[in-house]
Amino acid sequence: MASLDIQEIYRAQKVLREVARNTRIIGPTKLSNDSEVYLKPENLQATGSFKLRGAYYKISQLTDEEKARGVIACSAGNHAQGVALGATRNGIKSLICLPAGAPLSKVEATKNYGAEVCLVPGVYDDAYAKAIELKEKYGYTFVHPFDDPLVIAGQGTIGLEIIEEMPDVEAVVVPIGGGGLISGVAFAIKTLRPDVKVYGVQAAGAPSMAESVKRHEKIHLDSVSTIADGIAVKEPGVNTFEMCEKYVDEIVTVTDDEIAAAILALIEKQKIVAEGAGAVSVAAVMFDKLPVRGKKVVCLVSGGNIDVTILNRVITRGLTKNGRMSTISLDLYDKPGQLSGVCAVIAELGGNVLSVAHERSHTSTQINGCVLRVELETRNADHIEIIRQGLADAGYHLLD
Amino acid sequence: MASLDIQEIYRAQKVLREVARNTRIIGPTKLSNDSEVYLKPENLQATGSFKLRGAYYKISQLTDEEKARGVIACSAGNHAQGVALGATRNGIKSLICLPAGAPLSKVEATKNYGAEVCLVPGVYDDAYAKAIELKEKYGYTFVHPFDDPLVIAGQGTIGLEIIEEMPDVEAVVVPIGGGGLISGVAFAIKTLRPDVKVYGVQAAGAPSMAESVKRHEKIHLDSVSTIADGIAVKEPGVNTFEMCEKYVDEIVTVTDDEIAAAILALIEKQKIVAEGAGAVSVAAVMFDKLPVRGKKVVCLVSGGNIDVTILNRVITRGLTKNGRMSTISLDLYDKPGQLSGVCAVIAELGGNVLSVAHERSHTSTQINGCVLRVELETRNADHIEIIRQGLADAGYHLLD
Repeated sequence: MASLDIQEIYRAQKVLREVARNTRIIGPTKLSNDSEVYLKPENLQATGSFKLRGAYYKISQLTDEEKARGVIACSAGNHAQGVALGATRNGIKSLICLPAGAPLSKVEATKNYGAEVCLVPGVYDDAYAKAIELKEKYGYTFVHPFDDPLVIAGQGTIGLEIIEEMPDVEAVVVPIGGGGLISGVAFAIKTLRPDVKVYGVQAAGAPSMAESVKRHEKIHLDSVSTIADGIAVKEPGVNTFEMCEKYVDEIVTVTDDEIAAAILALIEKQKIVAEGAGAVSVAAVMFDKLPVRGKKVVCLVSGGNIDVTILNRVITRGLTKNGRMSTISLDLYDKPGQLSGVCAVIAELGGNVLSVAHERSHTSTQINGCVLRVELETRNADHIEIIRQGLADAGYHLLD
Repeated sequence: MASLDIQEIYRAQKVLREVARNTRIIGPTKLSNDSEVYLKPENLQATGSFKLRGAYYKISQLTDEEKARGVIACSAGNHAQGVALGATRNGIKSLICLPAGAPLSKVEATKNYGAEVCLVPGVYDDAYAKAIELKEKYGYTFVHPFDDPLVIAGQGTIGLEIIEEMPDVEAVVVPIGGGGLISGVAFAIKTLRPDVKVYGVQAAGAPSMAESVKRHEKIHLDSVSTIADGIAVKEPGVNTFEMCEKYVDEIVTVTDDEIAAAILALIEKQKIVAEGAGAVSVAAVMFDKLPVRGKKVVCLVSGGNIDVTILNRVITRGLTKNGRMSTISLDLYDKPGQLSGVCAVIAELGGNVLSVAHERSHTSTQINGCVLRVELETRNADHIEIIRQGLADAGYHLLD
């Protein structure tokens, strides 16, 4: 990509002073015992993610004629909000195509930032096709979520901010979806400070860039599945793939359970809210996927727009992953005293019962039996094992 | 209280540079349409609350002999962690008495900050009695959670930081439990900037200072009940009561539902996690309890140490309060097609079903009936009413 040079990123930095926050680095944190971990909290950015940077800079560079016609984008997430606010703050019109099933909260947020919203029946691909059709018809400028040098330059300003605020940083860890964020950040850092390592992280259920870089060819995934919906991208961009090959030291993946544990750790230890995509960088360091022991590391937390109903489920999953919550299922005779006996064993061993459910129509149980599911608060995985063993020793039949 | 002067707070500020973060003001936020609301995020302070300030400053001022003997405190919450880290960073020993039933997470956190923990059978009052007994026996210095001029001076540094960082602030809103935080903050602000309003907020279920100031006498509440456990205090301090009378412009209360809605708003709009006590200041502004329309207001978010299992429940309650989640109960004949019919009406009207539960043993239903509880995601209170009306029009019998 011949058109990106470091001066473009400095220009973007200057332009973005009008609208984007320089999110100050947080830390040192206690997120890892092995590394000195800091956070670049772009979840605290206006619109709740870094996307505003690229979108605003791209839009600011349009010609007057292009500005007069307006911009269009297709997204149900952070890019939609970034483009909406970016356009509004540039004083121009924006139209965002969303799949009709998009969450109400996302639609409302996009409208609130000043965009016109076009709900398209079907899935993302249908909304994308509609956006392209409208762009052709009305001459809107299409703002790509990642594969555009000016968008990449906007995201790259984060790289400048990190090395300006923390000159002795040794490694920067960046989430990857389509690759726009890491392309900009890695380009800025490797140009100015080639000694600083730049690592990328993808969700194990959407490893398009990781696989592409491994095979040295841009691949397309047929399907993606992860709680980190913001980086569930099937195919890298042409520019971003090339830049990741050139500037990124290593790309690793993290599982959904690891992501949930990272979101939970950010809530409990740092009191900040990250979305799945935003937490993958922290997950990679927490679960020791990267060669950063003893190093001073900045994890880029790219966004915080997590649906609160999903947040509830993520917290539960994170607690389970840490062994702080567990569900034990038992096969019981349906007679008085059984529940009381089970609870006594659990209490004796220091577990805290959160909920119990009797299921009498469970097909695997005998007609005079029932399945008891006990949801427990526990200290850790060992504690769960002690309680399970205690129940077995007391003669109860544990399922699974 | 003759012993507190503004120089003491400046001294505390200087001492605290070693250990406390100057938490930078966040905003302007969109937490209110009527005021320009900023946040002083002490939830992002080390230990997750402001308590470190007062505890550290108090401990730093002990004589060498007192330091050699160590300190003791009684708390299951933020004060415990503040004293633990304050003592450790001063290089001295701390012993924290906790009621034996204190949450595991709080006990672990206190130990991790370097304190020795003494679990006392019984409730808070028993732990307090034990702490006093041990203090007498071993000559430890007791660090009071709020009613101590040096502790108050430490908390007062927050007032200095606010007026230094935002000289044009017009009002500061502060949570009140025992009153140590607001006493320090109000004293600092009213001494230096008497034109700036200082408002206090308590939980409606624990209004000890609000009632005391109203009656101009220090009262004792027999019981307190609120989700804001960090400010569930039965009686103000002698010093703090006197200072609130003198320096605080007005004290208001907020309900648990309002607190839950504020916690939720901080998560969704600001991506930060506050505990109940920390969010009461925001709740007071969101629910229009204070004369701050058109004003530039800083809400002090005092802490973020909320139990994540409680956070789950708070999110649900906040969503319900906002009309974004609702549970509808119906009396159904237990025959095929009923659930499908209900779901069709709800889908038609734009509600999103989160969960359904059939209850067949409900005593108020007929033998061939069942109660159906449908948990719904909705847009707002009007939307809930439309769905309820739609179900009634379709012939379903809604309970409650």
